Amino acid sequence: YGMKERGREEFVKSELGSLNPVNWTVSDVVSYFTSAGFPEQALAFRTQEIDGKSLLLMQRNDVLTGLSIRLGPALKIYERHVKVLQRTHFEEDD
Amino acid sequence: YGMKERGREEFVKSELGSLNPVNWTVSDVVSYFTSAGFPEQALAFRTQEIDGKSLLLMQRNDVLTGLSIRLGPALKIYERHVKVLQRTHFEEDD
Amino acid sequence: YGMKERGREEFVKSELGSLNPVNWTVSDVVSYFTSAGFPEQALAFRTQEIDGKSLLLMQRNDVLTGLSIRLGPALKIYERHVKVLQRTHFEEDD
Amino acid sequence: YGMKERGREEFVKSELGSLNPVNWTVSDVVSYFTSAGFPEQALAFRTQEIDGKSLLLMQRNDVLTGLSIRLGPALKIYERHVKVLQRTHFEEDD
Amino acid sequence: YGMKERGREEFVKSELGSLNPVNWTVSDVVSYFTSAGFPEQALAFRTQEIDGKSLLLMQRNDVLTGLSIRLGPALKIYERHVKVLQRTHFEEDD
Repeated sequence: YGMKERGREEFVKSELGSLNPVNWTVSDVVSYFTSAGFPEQALAFRTQEIDGKSLLLMQRNDVLTGLSIRLGPALKIYERHVKVLQRTHFEEDD
Repeated sequence: YGMKERGREEFVKSELGSLNPVNWTVSDVVSYFTSAGFPEQALAFRTQEIDGKSLLLMQRNDVLTGLSIRLGPALKIYERHVKVLQRTHFEEDD
Repeated sequence: YGMKERGREEFVKSELGSLNPVNWTVSDVVSYFTSAGFPEQALAFRTQEIDGKSLLLMQRNDVLTGLSIRLGPALKIYERHVKVLQRTHFEEDD
Repeated sequence: YGMKERGREEFVKSELGSLNPVNWTVSDVVSYFTSAGFPEQALAFRTQEIDGKSLLLMQRNDVLTGLSIRLGPALKIYERHVKVLQRTHFEEDD
Repeated sequence: YGMKERGREEFVKSELGSLNPVNWTVSDVVSYFTSAGFPEQALAFRTQEIDGKSLLLMQRNDVLTGLSIRLGPALKIYERHVKVLQRTHFEEDD
């Protein structure tokens, strides 16, 4: 059952992998935030030309003040999405 | 009297619990700051769409510069309310 | 002469105490900065509704960017007044 | 073949050396970012009068907020270019 | 020759001393930056009412964002002048 375990682990990894934004275009970023429940804020990512690689470089303050979006959604976008996507990406790198 | 003590402690906890903003809607946040003596500033929380979950994520600088409210009230809102609500919330988590 | 010494020390303390802004109204804050040689900047404290309690919460950056006053006077107001009043206040608390 | 190795290393060093921006004029900076794929953003370096010496003094926040360029390209310009050019420059100094 | 050495050291100190801005008026500050090759930026020091004492209190970010001058010159003004004048001043204090 060791292999079964490993199989499941790899499946989880590849699932998470599909959320690794490193190769996302700007449109992929917009789609992601639209599906995540932030259709209005998603447009700001297009305006600021943020693709997956740029998304991985964003810090808290960039999301809060660099996108010109309302503070409430910005706080959630950073905490629940940008931070989580970055963590997933950097864990995969290990 | 040990049980009496514990009873009182639990009462205090549940009272504080009622101030745990994790499930507050944006309107609850607005009501809270209105009752707290900041009716004008309370509206800024609606404008910025800040519900309880976002409130728990706010830092000092977000309150001071992200709400476009006057500096004097902003300093008190952060120090006496946002900080206190966050402390209560995170203590309950322990 | 030990008592004499203590008497003088208490006098100094109460003199400094009169500069403890904890109970100052917004008008007291305005008067203070007017007398201190900053009549123009004093008005910004009224605009931003800063009373004594808010004054004690101000950080360097709040004075420099939150009052919309010129940088030169702002630097002196923070260094020679806000910082000094805060130090006096917190020393008295000990 | 020890010398061959050293020769190659020196070649690499001098190649990188040609990317040492310490003596670049503002126009050199503009050309660099144009060739690097950021023709639009390159103009902001001219507007802000940034020559090689100023480029070596830029921090992350200066690139993100001081150039008035879009956030996505700004993040890449800092991470892939400004930071790399500075590292090259300061390594050569050792 | 020990005395000769000491004499030279004192001369250097007093020369540097003449660059100690603690007693400079706003006009002295403006003259300094004009002679230093920044005539346009020098005017911003007048607009912001920065005399020698304020100059000694300026931090990097104050020069870069508080004077409303272009980023390139601002970076050099801070690094080559403000920082250096402050270091000279505080070394003399020792």
